[in-house]
Amino acid sequence: MNEVALPTLTSLCKRRGFIFQSSEIYGGLKSCYDFGPLGVELKRNIANRWWRHMVNSRDDVVGLDASIMMHPDVWRASGHLAGFSDPLVDCNNCKERFRADKAPKIEVGQQVTYKNAKKETITAVASRDYVCPVCGGCDLSPERQFNLMFRTHLGPVDYTDDIVKRILELPEVNKENLREVIDSVVSQNAIYLRPETAQAMFVQFLNVLNTTSQKVPFGIAQIGKSFRNEIITEKFIFRTAEFEQMEMEYFIPPGEQDKYLDYWSTERLKWWREIANTPENFQKRAHEPEELAHYASGCYDIEYMYPWGFDELEGVASRTDYDLKKHTEHSGVKLQYFDPNRPHPETGKLGYSYTPYVIEPAAGLTRGVLAYLCDSYRSEAKTDAEGKTTERVYLKLHPEIAPIKAAILPLTKKDGLPEVAQQIFAILLKKGINAKCDENSSIGKRYAKHDEIGTPVCVTIDHDTLSDNAVTVRDRDTMQQTRVDIDQWVEEFAG
Amino acid sequence: MNEVALPTLTSLCKRRGFIFQSSEIYGGLKSCYDFGPLGVELKRNIANRWWRHMVNSRDDVVGLDASIMMHPDVWRASGHLAGFSDPLVDCNNCKERFRADKAPKIEVGQQVTYKNAKKETITAVASRDYVCPVCGGCDLSPERQFNLMFRTHLGPVDYTDDIVKRILELPEVNKENLREVIDSVVSQNAIYLRPETAQAMFVQFLNVLNTTSQKVPFGIAQIGKSFRNEIITEKFIFRTAEFEQMEMEYFIPPGEQDKYLDYWSTERLKWWREIANTPENFQKRAHEPEELAHYASGCYDIEYMYPWGFDELEGVASRTDYDLKKHTEHSGVKLQYFDPNRPHPETGKLGYSYTPYVIEPAAGLTRGVLAYLCDSYRSEAKTDAEGKTTERVYLKLHPEIAPIKAAILPLTKKDGLPEVAQQIFAILLKKGINAKCDENSSIGKRYAKHDEIGTPVCVTIDHDTLSDNAVTVRDRDTMQQTRVDIDQWVEEFAG
Repeated sequence: MNEVALPTLTSLCKRRGFIFQSSEIYGGLKSCYDFGPLGVELKRNIANRWWRHMVNSRDDVVGLDASIMMHPDVWRASGHLAGFSDPLVDCNNCKERFRADKAPKIEVGQQVTYKNAKKETITAVASRDYVCPVCGGCDLSPERQFNLMFRTHLGPVDYTDDIVKRILELPEVNKENLREVIDSVVSQNAIYLRPETAQAMFVQFLNVLNTTSQKVPFGIAQIGKSFRNEIITEKFIFRTAEFEQMEMEYFIPPGEQDKYLDYWSTERLKWWREIANTPENFQKRAHEPEELAHYASGCYDIEYMYPWGFDELEGVASRTDYDLKKHTEHSGVKLQYFDPNRPHPETGKLGYSYTPYVIEPAAGLTRGVLAYLCDSYRSEAKTDAEGKTTERVYLKLHPEIAPIKAAILPLTKKDGLPEVAQQIFAILLKKGINAKCDENSSIGKRYAKHDEIGTPVCVTIDHDTLSDNAVTVRDRDTMQQTRVDIDQWVEEFAG
Repeated sequence: MNEVALPTLTSLCKRRGFIFQSSEIYGGLKSCYDFGPLGVELKRNIANRWWRHMVNSRDDVVGLDASIMMHPDVWRASGHLAGFSDPLVDCNNCKERFRADKAPKIEVGQQVTYKNAKKETITAVASRDYVCPVCGGCDLSPERQFNLMFRTHLGPVDYTDDIVKRILELPEVNKENLREVIDSVVSQNAIYLRPETAQAMFVQFLNVLNTTSQKVPFGIAQIGKSFRNEIITEKFIFRTAEFEQMEMEYFIPPGEQDKYLDYWSTERLKWWREIANTPENFQKRAHEPEELAHYASGCYDIEYMYPWGFDELEGVASRTDYDLKKHTEHSGVKLQYFDPNRPHPETGKLGYSYTPYVIEPAAGLTRGVLAYLCDSYRSEAKTDAEGKTTERVYLKLHPEIAPIKAAILPLTKKDGLPEVAQQIFAILLKKGINAKCDENSSIGKRYAKHDEIGTPVCVTIDHDTLSDNAVTVRDRDTMQQTRVDIDQWVEEFAG
């Protein structure tokens, strides 16, 4: 297991300005979070590293940034409208609404403890093989499929008017026809917030192909927000209604899916591990055949060892030609690729149009933030000069993703020391390095703060600096302090 | 006026992969757009430049990245739930729904031409002083306020059930009580997509203040998507249902608003102009007193000369203490700042808590993309060696925001030339420069393509390169070609 407890990390994130509860002053909005001053930099650093690696450093991948709202037919074609749902049940006893597939299973003679702490032995068989997870009640509503997409309406549609009009036209009102009227009016005008960024890459496949000189194999990559209206078991930012994804669809010739699934799952695991302190906490796990989506020919999860154990961070799936074919079918637009060098399978003549297969590395950016926070958290006992033992907490974040790369600390607020700090700051800024001058509170407190927020080095300017042009550079991980010439340090650090 | 016509620019954007209509293969989604391979890079470059300038290069500004969905009380407090609406009217003749405040005004004796090309002279005074903009009809529905926020529901809320239940409990159904039941159930569970990013900075004011060592004056900055369900007059990406903002709330002591309004409006205009070809197409315009929001003490628009004339690009508003006070009132949490050095206005003693005033530079990122595309578009007649005149189109984008900084072009696909291209690409990549190797079609076509997508330089590798280690560097704007040593060019270009 990971060494940090989730509440400890959550508390550090709040206290230091990484992550806040959304709308906290209004009591918070369940499962929505805001990235504070440090969190936003950490998230940007991870996202930019992905973009550089997956898009800018590759000739065979281009970027995309599609709108969150898409034509509703996209979700008809992808299957999200019909099938992207959870089975929900209401407990008639305590009124809890819960997921049938995650509810506690029961058997006669079994002892069960429910969330409300009641403990009892099952004596009679219920109508179903599960009970309410909160009160243990067996008096349950029928299961009902609840779609996970957020629904809204585009344009000045006042559907209340339409519903009222249609209800008044009914010969009589009853439960069934009322429900039918409301559902049909609402769904007629509905659009949805995307539950994944991936579909845009399929829908824009031809536009991208026609405007770039890409040849299969090639990929389309996107970073962006997605939305899922799930019942959420609180695990901080692991599962949130609104989250960020880094997805890439890699289009390949049919028949090469095993090779590329292997390539991308290996490549992606390597990418996560590269800047990790404990690479073995990132692992690749092949899906069992029964875990696979019906259209998938294979899938790996890149998992991270979160405080509750290994869980998903990224999925790398072999999606066959399922998506492009579905969109071809629903849109009437042929989403194919013409390869002049591929022989036609029947005539043998060169030149063949086919629907590419797809390998999809789909990573969670929000989860990536959580994984690297867990990976970097360190708590150590520290004994000071007087023999007093205190706790030292630091985030051993890789410099590439640390929110602040260097803290520039004038020992005092006067005697020209802040001015020297500003000069060093300006030089680092010009070299594209995100440093921060910090002149408040004692130097010890400032060191402790920058340890906790993962700043790799602190550069202290004291009175001697004015005469010897040297600073004290303190390393976050070793706490070692070295006196070095400013220019020499800048050259080494930012060279 | 700007020299490029909007349809010309729209067509280039589509043809070259800057901007596509969303869900185009399904007929498109009105007023939603996707940024293609080049558009996403251009947008990222503008956004990153803003972040670097507004956040990373300043000690007094920190970042934030809040969720799009916020607690509904946020919009009660901000006034968006009650007042953020358009007055809409239905034409009983042609069924068009339109904005009353934008409809054609009429007077007896006046000649009016409507969108359906009917031309007539007004002979009778209508019940209102405007007519339907499409058919000129006077038979209009009452005006109705239509809220511009997109509404959705968080959590597994099945409001249809509740509506049905409550309708069946009604002693009788009529238009009024049906409408009331539906509206009350729907709004009870509603959450909204933010219509601006700004409110998060007010709502998280205390969290940011408490977790950073900021002192007033300081700012909180955010880049993110916002959503407005407006009736949209098509102007490409100028006004879209889903758009990106770059907003900053700068908190200041009361009384200093004039100084900081002047500072920020000047600063922001300078920022836009810095990388513009025609800086005078960006201007600052003070709002007339009647244009000001009721809480604003002053406001400037930074306007750009789009193809249809000067229009908004950024607003810099002096918002007084309106927002923080409203959120204090609604949340019960005091959003104040304690200044130990400020004398209490009554006792004169040092140390005073007050509600800061706010200056808000709120820029449109989506609009910024449009402005710089217009600013950079160039079309010139070009005469070739045989005297034939053709059109040369190029985007004179500043290198800082150009999607691709350098195109590396091997003259042929063989003889080791592509390998040299890859070597140069790798060197530039390592220096963080987004270059692209491009080996398809003739060199002339490749030059023309890179002109049209704004690549500042093309680097051509020919057979001589293998012996003399030199390349031909072509400048996009002057079309001048220079033979230079590879290492020397890399040193100069990426040094």
